[in-house]
Amino acid sequence: MRIVDIITQKRDGASLSREEIDFFIKGYVAGDVPDYQAAAFCMALYFRGMTSEETTHLTEAMAFSGVTLDLHDVASFIVDKHSSGGVGDKTTLVVGPMVASLGVPVGKMSGRGLSFSGGTLDKLESIPGFNVSLTIEEFKHQLREIGVVVAGQTHELAPADGKLYALRDVTGTVPSLPLIASSIMSKKIAAGADAIVLDVKVGKGAFMETLPDAVELAELMAQIGRGLGRKMTAVIGDMSQPLGLAAGNALEVVEAVETLHGRGPEDFRQHCVDVAAEMLLIAGATTTPKESRERAAATLTDGSAWAKFRQFVAAQGGDLRFVDDPTLLPRAPFVDALRAPEAGYVARADAREIGFTVVDLGGGRAKKGDPVDPAVGVVLAENGKIGGRVEAGDPLLWVHAATAESLAAALTRLATAYEFSPEPVSPPPVIHRILR
Amino acid sequence: MRIVDIITQKRDGASLSREEIDFFIKGYVAGDVPDYQAAAFCMALYFRGMTSEETTHLTEAMAFSGVTLDLHDVASFIVDKHSSGGVGDKTTLVVGPMVASLGVPVGKMSGRGLSFSGGTLDKLESIPGFNVSLTIEEFKHQLREIGVVVAGQTHELAPADGKLYALRDVTGTVPSLPLIASSIMSKKIAAGADAIVLDVKVGKGAFMETLPDAVELAELMAQIGRGLGRKMTAVIGDMSQPLGLAAGNALEVVEAVETLHGRGPEDFRQHCVDVAAEMLLIAGATTTPKESRERAAATLTDGSAWAKFRQFVAAQGGDLRFVDDPTLLPRAPFVDALRAPEAGYVARADAREIGFTVVDLGGGRAKKGDPVDPAVGVVLAENGKIGGRVEAGDPLLWVHAATAESLAAALTRLATAYEFSPEPVSPPPVIHRILR
Repeated sequence: MRIVDIITQKRDGASLSREEIDFFIKGYVAGDVPDYQAAAFCMALYFRGMTSEETTHLTEAMAFSGVTLDLHDVASFIVDKHSSGGVGDKTTLVVGPMVASLGVPVGKMSGRGLSFSGGTLDKLESIPGFNVSLTIEEFKHQLREIGVVVAGQTHELAPADGKLYALRDVTGTVPSLPLIASSIMSKKIAAGADAIVLDVKVGKGAFMETLPDAVELAELMAQIGRGLGRKMTAVIGDMSQPLGLAAGNALEVVEAVETLHGRGPEDFRQHCVDVAAEMLLIAGATTTPKESRERAAATLTDGSAWAKFRQFVAAQGGDLRFVDDPTLLPRAPFVDALRAPEAGYVARADAREIGFTVVDLGGGRAKKGDPVDPAVGVVLAENGKIGGRVEAGDPLLWVHAATAESLAAALTRLATAYEFSPEPVSPPPVIHRILR
Repeated sequence: MRIVDIITQKRDGASLSREEIDFFIKGYVAGDVPDYQAAAFCMALYFRGMTSEETTHLTEAMAFSGVTLDLHDVASFIVDKHSSGGVGDKTTLVVGPMVASLGVPVGKMSGRGLSFSGGTLDKLESIPGFNVSLTIEEFKHQLREIGVVVAGQTHELAPADGKLYALRDVTGTVPSLPLIASSIMSKKIAAGADAIVLDVKVGKGAFMETLPDAVELAELMAQIGRGLGRKMTAVIGDMSQPLGLAAGNALEVVEAVETLHGRGPEDFRQHCVDVAAEMLLIAGATTTPKESRERAAATLTDGSAWAKFRQFVAAQGGDLRFVDDPTLLPRAPFVDALRAPEAGYVARADAREIGFTVVDLGGGRAKKGDPVDPAVGVVLAENGKIGGRVEAGDPLLWVHAATAESLAAALTRLATAYEFSPEPVSPPPVIHRILR
């Protein structure tokens, strides 16, 4: 077998065999296949695509390219969740404790923010003392004792994916459905999940901008997972505007804490209840969607999710004073409002523009390794979301900035994120579709 | 400007600006653009193509990526010829002396054989003592004194092309028309030609297998050349079967010498006369195609091309005894005939199979750097070419081999290169088209 023949076959539109895909991935991880051949292969794949069978083989080859976790000594059935990311997406902070409080263990490997999309690890690290660098033994220990743990992904899991993703990032081959799906799923498979709930976002603030694209990605990932013997559900959530009101690391922790107390924005609460309900259902902890939603929602009002969150924060070294009184969390020195230039109904509150503004403010990363300011961000007014009624001069959102200059620049940029209509506007649904 | 943005633009089908193409080529030669980005770029280009304007800019960027020759201190107008290669193509050995004998200087940088296609340098080196490694000063000196010189391409000319070609070879991105055309033309432009006659072959033994493909390549190269201020003509010659009768290095020198003496196979003689006539015409040495052909043909019968060939061989250190008596050239110890299995008209004498057989015999290269045996090869019978009438048992060709084993293997393989028809078959035209 020669790599150039495998590249040429894919270039000419042929399907690759399991052996060919395996040969490529094994060779790439071992360093026998150079980056330039892998880059040409990825670009050919970008144009020619892959069948779901090929994509499943690719996922499997990447999943088994390094260490794999077996968590069955901790729990008999492991549920994982994957969020495809977005703006203001602090779902894991709330859903993890909700599900764990009902006895279903949630052990999650998460990522950092990149481009307009925030990252769970960055949000948790805005709690002083919180440690996301756990060994596999520490990870398992906490999962057994507390039932919920969130850590950074170890490089030992699916190393082929890490290497390939870094290459795709600089060769224009990121937006390929089979490559996106196999990248996500290989990490989930390697991390030892028996069942996976995919939390796929759609809209301007997500990587998939249209519903058909989001459904296609979700269905492909579900096919891959089922092909590898996993139970799969996908929740397609809206990301045309930010989820909830807060975007920015500490600001999102504040909102997560509010939600865990049974308060917080209604769209975010509903999103968390739906995702948690699907996790409970797929784990067999509940039997009907209705029962599952009711039990999930109850954890937010009866204090059990909040209690689990405190255990989780404490177990990972976080200082509980900062979640018990979130006003102690890092705060930006400059705060000002963006005000409505005219009266009307909010027709657009562009999640992507808001996400990039958070990056500009220093709260996200333009490129990997950039430092992140936990304090900065944006908090929308309740009527600053799509469908909200505003009068001229009403605040649409507040910018939290480190400097007067970055505050002014953010306000200028955010003015372009909004549009208004004289007629009433319907807000988008929180959940577009659930694929079980 | 970022390379990943240039890759992405080409991936998405946009045209690149002259500045973007220049940035890519300059960065690649300097080592600032890594091979993996160049590989992804070439694959995107394979799928998306390039306009002739982009291809012209690419050619120019590669042509000026290193040293360029200026031969105007040798002659006021420099004519070059490019052959797209094939099986039995010893055209340069005959055409160079023909044209030079009429006072039009021919200074050619040539290549070596690769895959089924032979190379001019390998053929010349079968003459003992012949030296193809000349400095630029030696090249110019001989061009001034003798009027004809053939040397290996220096790595200083169009280094971008050398680097890019090596990468394309291992990344499945060789068969891209803009990349093929810019690769060929960049070397010709860097070598200082004012006018170029393209000798493009078409058929199973050429890189372009169909006439429309060959015409497309020829027209694209002509457009590039004209866009860069060069005079251009393209001759589209047949390569469904070998050109002439001999394929193999020393065997082709024998046939070239025969032709320079006014003998040799008629198709090869006609091909040489047509190519030489176009070179004379484009150089302004003749005024009509008819006059040009007559004057070119006369050099083969009046001894002037032969005299020039002897000067040329002697100037490059070749031992004249071996061309004055070609029976002294390296000869293979094992010779046997492939015989017609049935009576009929030859319908196929597959140039590609014959070319690969010469490689198998040791007379060509499976990969760069392989050594070449000058003695081995194949010589067709006159009636072993398409349209020839044979009786069962008549020889179709003779194999010249280094060992009994390779002889037997060659005869087995060559049996599959032939087909016969009970009805008369028309031979293909020697020249399909001339594009002035």
